[in-house]
Order: sequence, then C-alpha cells, then structure tokens
Amino acid sequence: MFPPIQDPEIWHRGDEQLIGIAAYAKAQMTDKRWRHTQGVVVAAHVLAHRHGADVRKATIAAYVHDVAKCWSLEQMRARIAAHDAHDPILDAPPSLWHAHAGALAVHCDVPSVDEDIVNAVKYHTSGRVGMGLLEKVVCVADYIEPGRHFEGVDQIRSEALHSLDRALLLGLSHTIRSLLAEHKHIYEQTVRSRNDMLRIVYPG
Amino acid sequence: MFPPIQDPEIWHRGDEQLIGIAAYAKAQMTDKRWRHTQGVVVAAHVLAHRHGADVRKATIAAYVHDVAKCWSLEQMRARIAAHDAHDPILDAPPSLWHAHAGALAVHCDVPSVDEDIVNAVKYHTSGRVGMGLLEKVVCVADYIEPGRHFEGVDQIRSEALHSLDRALLLGLSHTIRSLLAEHKHIYEQTVRSRNDMLRIVYPG
Repeated sequence: MFPPIQDPEIWHRGDEQLIGIAAYAKAQMTDKRWRHTQGVVVAAHVLAHRHGADVRKATIAAYVHDVAKCWSLEQMRARIAAHDAHDPILDAPPSLWHAHAGALAVHCDVPSVDEDIVNAVKYHTSGRVGMGLLEKVVCVADYIEPGRHFEGVDQIRSEALHSLDRALLLGLSHTIRSLLAEHKHIYEQTVRSRNDMLRIVYPG
Repeated sequence: MFPPIQDPEIWHRGDEQLIGIAAYAKAQMTDKRWRHTQGVVVAAHVLAHRHGADVRKATIAAYVHDVAKCWSLEQMRARIAAHDAHDPILDAPPSLWHAHAGALAVHCDVPSVDEDIVNAVKYHTSGRVGMGLLEKVVCVADYIEPGRHFEGVDQIRSEALHSLDRALLLGLSHTIRSLLAEHKHIYEQTVRSRNDMLRIVYPG
C-alpha cells in the first residue's frame, strides 16, 4: 500500500517549508519516533490523496503530530498549564498529553500552519466528536503506518482505502480493547469518538 | 455457589414486607425476567452476607432492580421525563432507561425503601464513580446470577467471593467488550465506573 519511506530532503527537494517543518519535528524526537513519523507522513499522504483531503496539510500535520511525544511529562504539563492551568486534559492519563502539548507548540512555533493542522495534531490520539477530514486522515494514518504491527491492523489498512470512518471505528475500538486488556484508564473522549463513528457508520 | 432458587412465599414465610415487595416486582415482569430476578436475589443475598452488606436491603434491592425492565420504552421515558424532562439519561441508549425509571418507581411505590436501595436500582447497569457497598452487591449479583452464561462469568463468580471491586472491574470490562463486538453505543458512565474500579483495584 505504501511507497518506501524517504528522507524529507530528497522527497521534498526544493520545498523549503516542508523540509523545515520536517527538521523541526525530527530535532525533538528519538530515531524510533522519527521512523514512526515518516511512516505516518507516507500513510497520511496516501489517505489524503485517496479521500480528497489537502495533501500538503496532511503531510505537514503528519510530520508534527508527535512533536511533543518525546518531551518529559513535566515539559508537556508545563506547556499545557501555561496556556490553561485548568485544561481538563491534565486530569486525563499523561499518555494523552503529548497531543495537546504538541498542538500548542506547533501553533506557536510554525506560523504557517492553520487551525485544521493544529486540530489534527490535538486530536490525533483520542479523536473527538465531529472530526474533520484532515483530523481523520492523520488519526487513521497513525494507526496504519507501515511500522504498526498489531492484531487487526491489516483490516484497518484495507478499510482505510474505502472509508476513513470505518477505519476509525475499527482503530478506536482496537484502542479501547487494548486498554481493557492492559488494565489501563480509558479516556472518555476516545469512547465518545468511537460512539460518534458508530453513529456515522451504522446510522439509525 | 448458590442455593436453589425458591419461591419468595416459602423463603420469606411470615415476612409480609419481603413477600409484598417480591409480588410487586413479579407483577411487572415476564416469567423469564422473574427467574432472572430470583437468581439476582439469591446471588445478592450470598454476596451481602459475604462482604458485610445489609442482607435485607440487598434482598429488597435485588427483587426490584429490574422492576421497569419489561415496561415499554414510552413508559420508561414518560416516568423519567415526568420527574426531570432534562434528565441526561434520556440522551443515553434506551437499554439504560429501565434502571433510572425503576429507581423512580421504587422510590414512590415502596415507601419502606431507603436511598441506598434506590441507588442500587438506579446504578445497577452502568455503575457510577464512588459506588456504595449495596450498589456493588446488586451490580455484581446481576452479572453472576445462576442464569448468566457468558464467556468469563465463572471468573467473575470466583472473584466476587473475594473482592466486589475486582468482580466489578471484570464485569464492566466484559460489558464494554461486548458493546464493542456488537457495534453498540458505549455509555460513558460505564467507562467512568470501570476506570474508577481500575483505580481502586490497581492503585498508583
């Protein structure tokens, strides 16, 4: 399904904005997280093209979606609290903080990004009720990038080519099932997003 | 684990209050629902005794926990809306209405019941954050009564003898897993209750 992962400087030769954004993201990540990011970029590119989303925005959002993932928890908390000390995300499991902290960082650090991209970063882990097309593209790309190897991922890959909503329903359901099996907290927003997809995929 | 199910008039001979409450519940149910109710009464009796809950209150709550289950959806909705037209339960799946409608009915129709019993009826399906002992007894009894035959029920039965919290964590997790598999809406309160049990069972 996906072409081989390439270096941004080769893939985007001559496009200083994309090369700059890729370098901005890479500088804040481990090598492993960068390889995952490259996978999400390729998957988001394919999905955006397939489903009529803005391919450039999808590429940018994919590069920066995990920009805060390798920060310390303290760094994430401080970033979120500086913006809003009462942000309810701070009561959610810390595994979700990176998406919100990353969205705040991207909004400040990369002036050329718009609200769609910021929201795609902010909701890439939990989803939300009423997700936009770009948000769906990045969220699904994060589930199916070539480096993912969980049970059921191939079914999500194959659904993703036809329906982002069905792919998201499968992906979010997989997340909830995994959290149950691993005895971890289930974030309510993940459940609301999954219920919203259920309503869209199986209306009435 | 459970003694054979008996007729309330035999089991509670001479106890007009219990016989009356059993008859009140039975009169509003199908035979199948009544057999389930008798199972929950026996299970709640055993669990209450085992975990130091009020055995009489547990018995009463078990008799009436499904008192509204065989009502029409319209009857449930009308009962809830008459009490509070904006009750958020009316936005939840109708499969949850019977617990709230039943709690309202029991509160009005059976003057001898107290708040603990009403809450045990109200939260017997979804649970809630900060459940009381009687609520846990009835909720677990509903999962493990002798007529239940789902995958994993024996593990819940065996946990229930040692820890209501562990049994509830298993039971609520089973409910969420089933709703995922059956492509049904997951009520957020069920997730909140499960997360609360997770916090209690695996603190820190």
